Amino acid sequence: MIYIRTSFIRLHTLLQSANAAITSKSRLSLRNVRTMSSANRLDLSGVMPPIATPFDKDENIRYDLLEENINKWNKIPFRGYVVQGSSGEYMYLSKEERVEIVKRVRNAVPSDKLIVAGSGCESTRDTIEMTQRMADAGADAVLVVTPCFYKGGMTAEALTNHYTKVADASPVPVILYSVPANTGIDLPVEVAAKMCSHPNVIGMKESGGDVSKIGLMVHKTKGEDFQILAGSGGFFIQAMTVGAVGGICAVANVLGGELCHLHQLFKDGKMEKAVELQHRIIAPNAAVTRKFGIPGLKTAMDWFGYYGGPTRSPLVPLAQGQLDAMMKDFVENGFDPKK
Amino acid sequence: MIYIRTSFIRLHTLLQSANAAITSKSRLSLRNVRTMSSANRLDLSGVMPPIATPFDKDENIRYDLLEENINKWNKIPFRGYVVQGSSGEYMYLSKEERVEIVKRVRNAVPSDKLIVAGSGCESTRDTIEMTQRMADAGADAVLVVTPCFYKGGMTAEALTNHYTKVADASPVPVILYSVPANTGIDLPVEVAAKMCSHPNVIGMKESGGDVSKIGLMVHKTKGEDFQILAGSGGFFIQAMTVGAVGGICAVANVLGGELCHLHQLFKDGKMEKAVELQHRIIAPNAAVTRKFGIPGLKTAMDWFGYYGGPTRSPLVPLAQGQLDAMMKDFVENGFDPKK
Amino acid sequence: MIYIRTSFIRLHTLLQSANAAITSKSRLSLRNVRTMSSANRLDLSGVMPPIATPFDKDENIRYDLLEENINKWNKIPFRGYVVQGSSGEYMYLSKEERVEIVKRVRNAVPSDKLIVAGSGCESTRDTIEMTQRMADAGADAVLVVTPCFYKGGMTAEALTNHYTKVADASPVPVILYSVPANTGIDLPVEVAAKMCSHPNVIGMKESGGDVSKIGLMVHKTKGEDFQILAGSGGFFIQAMTVGAVGGICAVANVLGGELCHLHQLFKDGKMEKAVELQHRIIAPNAAVTRKFGIPGLKTAMDWFGYYGGPTRSPLVPLAQGQLDAMMKDFVENGFDPKK
Amino acid sequence: MIYIRTSFIRLHTLLQSANAAITSKSRLSLRNVRTMSSANRLDLSGVMPPIATPFDKDENIRYDLLEENINKWNKIPFRGYVVQGSSGEYMYLSKEERVEIVKRVRNAVPSDKLIVAGSGCESTRDTIEMTQRMADAGADAVLVVTPCFYKGGMTAEALTNHYTKVADASPVPVILYSVPANTGIDLPVEVAAKMCSHPNVIGMKESGGDVSKIGLMVHKTKGEDFQILAGSGGFFIQAMTVGAVGGICAVANVLGGELCHLHQLFKDGKMEKAVELQHRIIAPNAAVTRKFGIPGLKTAMDWFGYYGGPTRSPLVPLAQGQLDAMMKDFVENGFDPKK
Repeated sequence: MIYIRTSFIRLHTLLQSANAAITSKSRLSLRNVRTMSSANRLDLSGVMPPIATPFDKDENIRYDLLEENINKWNKIPFRGYVVQGSSGEYMYLSKEERVEIVKRVRNAVPSDKLIVAGSGCESTRDTIEMTQRMADAGADAVLVVTPCFYKGGMTAEALTNHYTKVADASPVPVILYSVPANTGIDLPVEVAAKMCSHPNVIGMKESGGDVSKIGLMVHKTKGEDFQILAGSGGFFIQAMTVGAVGGICAVANVLGGELCHLHQLFKDGKMEKAVELQHRIIAPNAAVTRKFGIPGLKTAMDWFGYYGGPTRSPLVPLAQGQLDAMMKDFVENGFDPKK
Repeated sequence: MIYIRTSFIRLHTLLQSANAAITSKSRLSLRNVRTMSSANRLDLSGVMPPIATPFDKDENIRYDLLEENINKWNKIPFRGYVVQGSSGEYMYLSKEERVEIVKRVRNAVPSDKLIVAGSGCESTRDTIEMTQRMADAGADAVLVVTPCFYKGGMTAEALTNHYTKVADASPVPVILYSVPANTGIDLPVEVAAKMCSHPNVIGMKESGGDVSKIGLMVHKTKGEDFQILAGSGGFFIQAMTVGAVGGICAVANVLGGELCHLHQLFKDGKMEKAVELQHRIIAPNAAVTRKFGIPGLKTAMDWFGYYGGPTRSPLVPLAQGQLDAMMKDFVENGFDPKK
Repeated sequence: MIYIRTSFIRLHTLLQSANAAITSKSRLSLRNVRTMSSANRLDLSGVMPPIATPFDKDENIRYDLLEENINKWNKIPFRGYVVQGSSGEYMYLSKEERVEIVKRVRNAVPSDKLIVAGSGCESTRDTIEMTQRMADAGADAVLVVTPCFYKGGMTAEALTNHYTKVADASPVPVILYSVPANTGIDLPVEVAAKMCSHPNVIGMKESGGDVSKIGLMVHKTKGEDFQILAGSGGFFIQAMTVGAVGGICAVANVLGGELCHLHQLFKDGKMEKAVELQHRIIAPNAAVTRKFGIPGLKTAMDWFGYYGGPTRSPLVPLAQGQLDAMMKDFVENGFDPKK
Repeated sequence: MIYIRTSFIRLHTLLQSANAAITSKSRLSLRNVRTMSSANRLDLSGVMPPIATPFDKDENIRYDLLEENINKWNKIPFRGYVVQGSSGEYMYLSKEERVEIVKRVRNAVPSDKLIVAGSGCESTRDTIEMTQRMADAGADAVLVVTPCFYKGGMTAEALTNHYTKVADASPVPVILYSVPANTGIDLPVEVAAKMCSHPNVIGMKESGGDVSKIGLMVHKTKGEDFQILAGSGGFFIQAMTVGAVGGICAVANVLGGELCHLHQLFKDGKMEKAVELQHRIIAPNAAVTRKFGIPGLKTAMDWFGYYGGPTRSPLVPLAQGQLDAMMKDFVENGFDPKK
């Protein structure tokens, strides 16, 4: 399998030098040709939850409860699943755990749903290794967060260096990922505009909330297969309006059906209803991300019929006042877990 | 004195176009009538440029060139003008100049166009004084920026204290104004949610670019006469999508017709064309705000047939490299000043 | 023009009180004599409180209580007074009030104590005007804060432009002032290194707390009459260690004697005692600045026998919990107002 | 070995409840009793370079060149070595590499020099595992950086949770580590004040540059064995002045002798010379940290007779303009690599 992929990459390189246009970015020929629209592209349109990783009270992974969650999620018309976005506590997982989770999810999910695996690490070499292992584990694409520890060094040049090397080496398509609230790094538009023409880069998850930037990136990457995904449920239709094709939203772990409904309403042009629903989702979305973080997300999952459970340390459980505030954020917007 | 002002306001109101909200939220009520019919509201829908203040090379105000600019702008279907938003260098004007400019603009503008005057100062007392003087000078409403010098002290409580006192004392409706790029203060949603029920507060200009916040504010102020305006041309239709009623956009000083066209396309539901135009406006908008500031804005005005001229010191003119970059931001998006 | 200004400066110098006029870098030198003997320099060594402005409950200035405060402070071996540093709520004062306060303080203070007046405004022209009026009112030097509203435009070039024009025009020596917690602008070392050779610039107040920067500025301005003052009581001896000559510290409004004692201990090389005292001052200093702001400072003044009184709006009084926390910050460090 | 250590920890716990004073924080009985002053404490006084990790052009570790560097450094009176501080690119190393490097350094360094190993990871469990492995590899103490990815979740409570668990489990003393320029997290004084009484926490490296905070921490941890280290050569003597006992400074990789000389001058009370040297070190220190990062540090090492070599990707080499600027930062301060 690895051999085949490697060969493909060599082949790809040859084809590229001949005629870049011939090859498909998503190289789906290797992947049972999932959902291709025209010319082999991997279509990211729709909603994907960046799934939480379930632990028991000793912080061990509960794969059984992960599968239970997935069985419930499988009934929702998600486009697929993001395994190890920021909501997946991937920074707290060992390499082996990261890969194993992807395998388990792949097995639990129908083949028409995408598995996008977060393979970002701080170094380029670790990212490449993780990318390859996740492709082997069944990921259809990888989501690669900006490295961030040496903030002063993460210039446009360094980020382009990173993404180019990762995309060159990756057996599956690469999705850029900017999440400044966690990383302190806002992936510059110029890096997206440069990377979009790489045959193995197919899009970007933008969690920063600057929809002016989202519009500009859609504009600057026109004509390329570069699909932009809203990285939050708080600005889903605002981003869709200027050309995003979908969203990877933490709140979809909890309100997945509602997010898919929102996407459908938008596609159907039922804007009044879409706006009304979007409005109601903003506060719950903020609750499970910015305001109360992963502990908030997992608690809300518990409330709404999924297994959330504890986080790994150093994260700590919510205090009672936070629980009350979060409940209000849901109930006041018509999402009452008791109903 | 108050009586005279009230009379003036009545007169001014009468002179306004018959159909557009015969009176305003506060003007009619004059603090007594708390519940108003929709017929009475001051409609902020549409595009308003926050006009630049023209200086000569000795930094003196050129009122004649201000009028020339306005005569040109009057041909564009703006909803009105914002006099002394951030683009107006109001921080560099004396109190007397601030008031005089409002008078001149009022005289140069047809009565069916709104004059919204920026009356914000650091202290509440100065803001109240400036508000009253600007109402006397003919402003239909005032735009009140968050005070910002004592950042640690600008809590939700302090801001609510400020806006309540100003709105209580103002003869004309008050519009809140959040512009964190300049002030370092992001007016909290809770303050907007509290102030929206004040009979003399009719809306807010949000320049921060967080359209999730804009959506949430529209949601939390439903049922009140609280109109939200996009504070930038970079996220105009994204904000409109979730309920903003228009925009106060620096780039409208330069591309006013295009901004009004964008608004019209959105209203007409011609979303494809709207998105295409929105995309092209983002870079020019960034050029005249975040990237090159007031010197950039004024230079672009010079390019596009208006008088921009120099800024007041300490701002300095653009360097050649900046001029070239800014030209590219316009030309590449189809706005070529030489054509 | 320069000649006229020079003449004016000479005149102004003569008109000033006989003894004060002899010294000062610029007054005597008038831009010709670059190297000055130590006899001629305006010596800023020591402690100066940036005095608070007393208001009554209607927010009017209580000049009588200002004088009472000063009479008490005059018994402390301060080097002088800073009138309208950030602690003086100068942003909330009218131009007339700003000048009047300087006059009153000048009259209430012995001639051997310096009066340093904060004359900074957003525009260069306003700063020049205010500088001249404050010199006329009796200020020995002016403290000029970085303009800050157009943050993106406050480049090293713009700041150098500002300070050069102000220093050229000022009848009295100019002290640069960087206070990023309020302004969001950290005056770059390169600007200080450039301005230090201006004959009318004699120093800088650094409130940012980066003592690496303070050391570098002392280093880069060696050989010039450029005196650096710690802008906070929290890093007084740390700054003195690398070459600062004194401090302008808000906490000196409350614990003036202790600050002067700290300065003396340092000068006498009694480092153990100096460190012990410095340690005890850090928390009270933070309380009246970063933690509780001007409302905290004024409350502490009330506690320790001065008139603090209310602030101007929009600042609001401390809540009970804040009062308790602040009391602890003083008492735990051996500063008990009840003793 | 692990068994013994675990037992010791249990014993220690028993002893503690009886009489905290009997036990030594540093538990050096386990470690050949290195350099104990009174009562077994691990004395951190002095200078330690956070050593760079040498790679070849293929990004593989060059252990031979690491040893060559160490042989040169061993001639400098360092207190010891920090292996895998931020300058060690530890985020780019595998777990195995991290441990192996510690072993190699331990073997290359005389037993009277401390080995402090950076064992911080994002999760508490990974940090505990790494801590134990590094103790096994010969580390005398561990340096534990604040976790940082989930910034919103890194409250004082979460950090206290993290450090308590790590210190409870660690076979060697723990040193807290705050480096906000990389992490975006400023370890709060209250956490240091709480952790200082833990018998297995012996100090903190503070790289944030706020010497007011350093003074306050010294003050709040008095009476405990809690030694504070300046995390930068830019504020070494400023921090020493208020009670820091030494420094872990990236620039000591390059100018190690000078840093030790600075420490000695300070201890000998030769303050004038100390200040003069401190001044000259600030700019080179900034060059190899804030300004040019690890690529700058390694280049400077190459200049001054050590092996610096390339970094791992995504970091990129300096451009020519940066090289020139960095050379100036050294040469202008009397550190000319050609001499």
